Amino acid sequence: MKTVDTLIHAGWIVPVEPESVVLEQHSIAIQDGHILDLLPTAEARDRYQAEHEFDKPGHLLMPGLINAHTHAAMSLMRGLTDDLPLMRWLSEHIWPAEGKWVSPEFVRDGSRLAMAEMLRGGTTCFNDMYFFPDEVARLAEQTGMRAVVGLIVIDFPTAWAQDSDEYIHKGFAVHDQVKHSPLVTTAFAPHGPYTVSDEPLQKIVMYAEELDIPVHMHVHETAHEVTEGIQQHGKRPLSRLAELGLVSPRLLAVHMTQLDEDEIAIHADANAHVVHCPESNLKLASGFCPVQRLLDAGVNVALGTDGAASNNDLDMFGEMRTAALLAKGVAGDASALPAYRALEMATINGARALGLDAVCGSLVAGKAADIVAVKMDDLETQPLYHAISQLVYATARDKVSDVWVAGRHLLKDSQLTTLDEAAILDTARRWQNRLIEQS
Amino acid sequence: MKTVDTLIHAGWIVPVEPESVVLEQHSIAIQDGHILDLLPTAEARDRYQAEHEFDKPGHLLMPGLINAHTHAAMSLMRGLTDDLPLMRWLSEHIWPAEGKWVSPEFVRDGSRLAMAEMLRGGTTCFNDMYFFPDEVARLAEQTGMRAVVGLIVIDFPTAWAQDSDEYIHKGFAVHDQVKHSPLVTTAFAPHGPYTVSDEPLQKIVMYAEELDIPVHMHVHETAHEVTEGIQQHGKRPLSRLAELGLVSPRLLAVHMTQLDEDEIAIHADANAHVVHCPESNLKLASGFCPVQRLLDAGVNVALGTDGAASNNDLDMFGEMRTAALLAKGVAGDASALPAYRALEMATINGARALGLDAVCGSLVAGKAADIVAVKMDDLETQPLYHAISQLVYATARDKVSDVWVAGRHLLKDSQLTTLDEAAILDTARRWQNRLIEQS
Repeated sequence: MKTVDTLIHAGWIVPVEPESVVLEQHSIAIQDGHILDLLPTAEARDRYQAEHEFDKPGHLLMPGLINAHTHAAMSLMRGLTDDLPLMRWLSEHIWPAEGKWVSPEFVRDGSRLAMAEMLRGGTTCFNDMYFFPDEVARLAEQTGMRAVVGLIVIDFPTAWAQDSDEYIHKGFAVHDQVKHSPLVTTAFAPHGPYTVSDEPLQKIVMYAEELDIPVHMHVHETAHEVTEGIQQHGKRPLSRLAELGLVSPRLLAVHMTQLDEDEIAIHADANAHVVHCPESNLKLASGFCPVQRLLDAGVNVALGTDGAASNNDLDMFGEMRTAALLAKGVAGDASALPAYRALEMATINGARALGLDAVCGSLVAGKAADIVAVKMDDLETQPLYHAISQLVYATARDKVSDVWVAGRHLLKDSQLTTLDEAAILDTARRWQNRLIEQS
Repeated sequence: MKTVDTLIHAGWIVPVEPESVVLEQHSIAIQDGHILDLLPTAEARDRYQAEHEFDKPGHLLMPGLINAHTHAAMSLMRGLTDDLPLMRWLSEHIWPAEGKWVSPEFVRDGSRLAMAEMLRGGTTCFNDMYFFPDEVARLAEQTGMRAVVGLIVIDFPTAWAQDSDEYIHKGFAVHDQVKHSPLVTTAFAPHGPYTVSDEPLQKIVMYAEELDIPVHMHVHETAHEVTEGIQQHGKRPLSRLAELGLVSPRLLAVHMTQLDEDEIAIHADANAHVVHCPESNLKLASGFCPVQRLLDAGVNVALGTDGAASNNDLDMFGEMRTAALLAKGVAGDASALPAYRALEMATINGARALGLDAVCGSLVAGKAADIVAVKMDDLETQPLYHAISQLVYATARDKVSDVWVAGRHLLKDSQLTTLDEAAILDTARRWQNRLIEQS
């Protein structure tokens, strides 16, 4: 008998890799934060004894969900303004509110709320784009959650930095801050083609190569952005980015609702990634990302919730379901984006886009133990014919009972272990009152 | 002090009528199953004492959700087959399975599972279309849930009836069975234009008038249905229905994804209703219902989940959110179907379509006490700037804690009071094993 840190026995395990596999009555052995073994429960009971052992015959284990695009701190603006198109929503409401409120404290409190919501819903890793990424990084480490913090760059001054050089300079400092972190990595995060000019973009291409990190950017979110790009630069934004050298395996192009066949082919050839945010695209009427066509062309498509100000949740189970449903409607084909492909988008494809696929995104021996336990024996998920279909089409985040990140038990029987729920609620209410009183 | 049966004090009440209103710190007094009064909590405490009194400062009260189109018993086929287009899904999977399994026992067990799921998610009334509606009616009464049972008519023989005359004849018997029921009413439910021929449809027009009940029918679900209708009848299905006299204020036309401007105008002029089922339409790639254009034309649009075999849940909170998001994407306008309009669709519009708007659909004195309490102080719904936006965009059904139908407390602190959850789970699992073993 070998002694391990943790042993989890489950009714079902969906490892995501290999493809479409559902293992019944299997167990996972965790040692030093990593998956040591994944084997039939009968064998696991013979082979291992554990400090922490969990019997979950009614639960399914799956890899932690990866939210490949969010603005965590914006959770403090959840539902502040709805039912408006992107540019009005941004310029008349969100940007003024951010101008007034964004501070280290705001980012800390908003990101903490977001991380609590994500962990409760089975998200173990998020790719963030916001101001004060140093705060987000510190908080992720304290909480024990995996995060890619965005080194944001935008042409206009904010509370975080005054000009593109300062944004980049501060980005370097954040990258230094986390360079030994086992949980937090960085990505350059130029906001979008319409908010970042050529010079900083060229620098980002160079520095991303130097630091060996991804580039995370809103691209072709709306038709308006494309039209405006043509007016300003004489070409579609994606062509401009390609000329600047940004369209590469480092790029996570978020949204991508406006794409012609050539652009899909160029993106595929460049091995650049797409992050699909279906609910935000619908809510802001930004357009429809051609998900099935991208997959057919061989593009790696990940999934994100966007911020809670435009969603209005950070629910990757819901996002996965919306992605699977919407892709069929958009393709006019009910076999488009079948359940397993949607699950891939929410897990391993996100890891791949973020350069983390050796670390997480699937339940494979040697990877980090980023694991979610989902209750499958409630009324809402019965009967159960196909576990993966059930996960995508019938399971909601409230069925998540336990979450481990790097083997650490961050959600235990639906209770957060490293975050203080009451304090987070209290803080959210205080911000609510401030924003209401002074808006 | 007047003594009433029940008094509920809540942080917020969204009565749905009048439009867009949010009442803070208000209470509802219930007497004999009806809403007696709706007033500020301070006054309520002075004026009423109650046998059952509930203090819910962190909760919001809203009218029970009305699922205007479902096939409750099909919950036993949840996730049986996914990712297939409508006609293949029906003819190769669902219809053969129904031919083999549908029986009074199947309908009883499936409908009980469905009702449990709906009640737990805040749905108090459903409009059902399935075989053995006598069983559904009996079960709804036993459970205390409001239902409109469909007197189904279809050209081909099933376990329920052999030919259209027998379908209609059995429908009359079900109508007689429930005529004194305070909770259950009926609607004729001819399956669809492609499955019911002219003669029975003409009889249904006549008998619906005679019995004064609605007519509930799938109409223009797919482009294929329209093309086939033109081939067979030389006209689009909706034109054929109009000529047969079916397009009237009695009609609930379900799906309606294929509509030209004339058809929208004719539907509006006839005061006929539409039941929108966005998630089923997406999942089966049936097409997009032009919801905002229908609303602009003055059509009353209600909301339904369809059956759990094609959704795969009976979650009206989710459906309301999907409807609000998708309508914006389809209209290309982020101000389309704002939160309050989506809430109307899920409540009062459903009541109106079913001829029940004097009974339910809003929290107004004199109506039945069909009330849902929703927890609004969890992480996922904080901060809270606009209660109606939060209900539609950020609240999921797991926040429903209590449900009353006609004043009876059917869900109490998330526990069903008239249905045996363990027995339902056990039965669902037995059906699952039968369907797996013998398919």
